[in-house]
Amino acid sequence: MVDASESARRGPYAKTASRRAEIIASATAIFSTHGYQGGSLRQIARQLDLGLTTVMHHFPTKVALLAAVLDQEDSSDPDAEERSRRDGFIPMVIGIVERNLRRQELVRMFSIISAEATHPGHEAHAWLVNRYAAVTASYLDLIAYDRAAGRITTDRDPELLAGIVVSGWEGIQIRWLADGTDPVEAMRTLLVDLLRPA
Amino acid sequence: MVDASESARRGPYAKTASRRAEIIASATAIFSTHGYQGGSLRQIARQLDLGLTTVMHHFPTKVALLAAVLDQEDSSDPDAEERSRRDGFIPMVIGIVERNLRRQELVRMFSIISAEATHPGHEAHAWLVNRYAAVTASYLDLIAYDRAAGRITTDRDPELLAGIVVSGWEGIQIRWLADGTDPVEAMRTLLVDLLRPA
Repeated sequence: MVDASESARRGPYAKTASRRAEIIASATAIFSTHGYQGGSLRQIARQLDLGLTTVMHHFPTKVALLAAVLDQEDSSDPDAEERSRRDGFIPMVIGIVERNLRRQELVRMFSIISAEATHPGHEAHAWLVNRYAAVTASYLDLIAYDRAAGRITTDRDPELLAGIVVSGWEGIQIRWLADGTDPVEAMRTLLVDLLRPA
Repeated sequence: MVDASESARRGPYAKTASRRAEIIASATAIFSTHGYQGGSLRQIARQLDLGLTTVMHHFPTKVALLAAVLDQEDSSDPDAEERSRRDGFIPMVIGIVERNLRRQELVRMFSIISAEATHPGHEAHAWLVNRYAAVTASYLDLIAYDRAAGRITTDRDPELLAGIVVSGWEGIQIRWLADGTDPVEAMRTLLVDLLRPA
């Protein structure tokens, strides 16, 4: 949020950006309650006390809004690979699990959309498949890097390990969202037992 | 399905049971496509070419139908604990993972409803929390049993291990639903690395 004088000085672009951010935040909340399939632009407009046409001026379709909502996540942690190479893969992952403790509704929205989007007909299906492929490719490199550096001792295929870390993490977070079971202890155990730190 | 003469012989109760089973199967398909929040009794009636009042005669509310849909699963594998004690926990779990390969839409429906139902306001929230508690309690006993029998060598807390097996499994199945990644290899690796068979 910018104050009124700053908004006036920065002109219509700043206003558009702040309105877009507001709609994206509302969509995150609506999708985390009703799912993507169950949410609607109309609900989002109502929540923000805006006309439906105003919302549709910024996001003409629900899928356009979904793309913007999903982009939030992808752009939110550009330094993860660098931290992993510097500090190790296990501390990097645990750092993100800890950060996610403070973004419960965003994590819930991603969990619901991921489960829905397993369906090949879902509008986020390609996003989900690409996200699994991209994160697994990144993590398999980082696991191979840690093994070459002598930080971990497993001799399993890094691609298999990366896939289990990514998907096990997803399930552990769903459990945390449901009943509060500590995801940090569960992820640390999973990582240590799979990767076997030196 | 029963044939017409058998249905006539067995009378109205058999007919009601078969109509209920039909509605439950349709609800499973609708919820696995649209989620529970996004699905409706109206869509289910349309899919079965029934009137909405006929569906509501069997299930007056969507949450009543949800309860019946969720019950399918709970009643579907009463012998799992016995198989685990006889053959071991790891083969028992792998057997269920292999069986789930043939029930993709049912697994998808459970994955979507579980993610939605993490929300405390969701109509299946209590079911989800109870299911996690019940499955974890059962699995921690079975893991402790295998350890006492010398089948596995981990010295970690069985409750922590049981929780990671249950939630890791959920994430591994979501990945399988999305892009076909083999859930049997992933679960076997997870179980072996966590439980360390003798």
